[in-house]
Amino acid sequence: MSSSPYPARQLLLLSNSTLHPGGYLEYAQGYIKDFLGRSAVKKVLFVPFALRDHQGYTDKVKAALGPWGFQVEGLHDFADKCQAVNSAQAIFIGGGNTFQLLKGLYDFQVLEAIRSRVLDHGIPYMGSSAGTNVSTKSIHTTNDMPIVFPPSFEALNLVPFNINPHYLDTDPNSTHKGETREERIRQYQQVPGVPPVVALREGSLLEVTGDHAILKGQLEALLFRGDAEPRSYPTGTDFGFLFQELKAQ
Amino acid sequence: MSSSPYPARQLLLLSNSTLHPGGYLEYAQGYIKDFLGRSAVKKVLFVPFALRDHQGYTDKVKAALGPWGFQVEGLHDFADKCQAVNSAQAIFIGGGNTFQLLKGLYDFQVLEAIRSRVLDHGIPYMGSSAGTNVSTKSIHTTNDMPIVFPPSFEALNLVPFNINPHYLDTDPNSTHKGETREERIRQYQQVPGVPPVVALREGSLLEVTGDHAILKGQLEALLFRGDAEPRSYPTGTDFGFLFQELKAQ
Repeated sequence: MSSSPYPARQLLLLSNSTLHPGGYLEYAQGYIKDFLGRSAVKKVLFVPFALRDHQGYTDKVKAALGPWGFQVEGLHDFADKCQAVNSAQAIFIGGGNTFQLLKGLYDFQVLEAIRSRVLDHGIPYMGSSAGTNVSTKSIHTTNDMPIVFPPSFEALNLVPFNINPHYLDTDPNSTHKGETREERIRQYQQVPGVPPVVALREGSLLEVTGDHAILKGQLEALLFRGDAEPRSYPTGTDFGFLFQELKAQ
Repeated sequence: MSSSPYPARQLLLLSNSTLHPGGYLEYAQGYIKDFLGRSAVKKVLFVPFALRDHQGYTDKVKAALGPWGFQVEGLHDFADKCQAVNSAQAIFIGGGNTFQLLKGLYDFQVLEAIRSRVLDHGIPYMGSSAGTNVSTKSIHTTNDMPIVFPPSFEALNLVPFNINPHYLDTDPNSTHKGETREERIRQYQQVPGVPPVVALREGSLLEVTGDHAILKGQLEALLFRGDAEPRSYPTGTDFGFLFQELKAQ
């Protein structure tokens, strides 16, 4: 029934890892257990490049996923990183600084291996925040500061659109004159040839299965496309129509 | 008396162009008139690349600076852009998207011409927001979304440190889990070999004359350096000590 070129694709793309007032990944516990459990995952390969303390970050993820029954290994621990990706049961890329993360993926030359493992071999991919940014076509809609220079903004392209994580509504009482998030994304949409942007508020996520991309969480998501006003979509929306549209271009 | 390699340097680096509740450049009127008047400037070359509507943006600047007695020309209007820079009396680079602006400067190959005109020939340079970011060593501390990919983050290097414009203090009541501005700049300071960051709140500016860099405006500025806690400096501070420090390295 699927017209997807990637029927095996399984992605859990979280807007954020921590949701006020809970602990790290706590709000997403149910989604994560379901998502990884469905593929009988026992061991997760964690990519800690978005922060500089790779071991400390990996330990934090171990402390969160361990009690839920998942073993965690840090990609930084493997001498042959492509081999580690190629034998992974599941991959989780955590948040931090998106530029640092993407530069790490380029420096260690693991982008193609991850892409193939996820799209062709169908292993589950989980991203949060910066890990969600790099799962999309490019990092053009990250909120992060460009603290390092990656060789490109093109990313894993596991989905052919962009996501803006941690989407923040404009505060009508603010006197600050920096651009609002909406203004920033609309400036991006003025650049010729760029794909649409799905803006995920904190606590929201997309669960992608083949050519379906279901919005989960409590809040609506916004779709920014060209000059049009951003359009709001409720929980349960299947953004899979974007796969069809972008394929047709 | 000056030990500066650039005794003729004259820069007015504004954190922002609009300050609540005033109009465009209104809060900075006195500073701008003094700064340009000192060099008997009659005509300003405006660089509108940070926004896509170059003519509309230039018209806006004309409407602001015209009544104060300054003619404004847009760099986009000149076929030979280096020649326009080389014959300019003063240069103003406006805000918008820093990535778009820097890419424009690279695309039109005017970085070296601007740098030489300002540092060697001493014509006044005025920047606001993104125009202040590109006046520094690099754009690593912009707040903007990376909507286009410039060939480098290295910028005009009219000053050898970084500036964070529109600096925003952490809101202790926020439940948002995206990084605070302070966290972002501190992540930058963890990258080996990067220069210090002067964080300018809205309404603040640096006036650079040779090897002096005086903080003006109503508010204190923060200096981020390495792992140290950011340090606060009052209006009137001369950040020229950074020129000495960075030269010594």
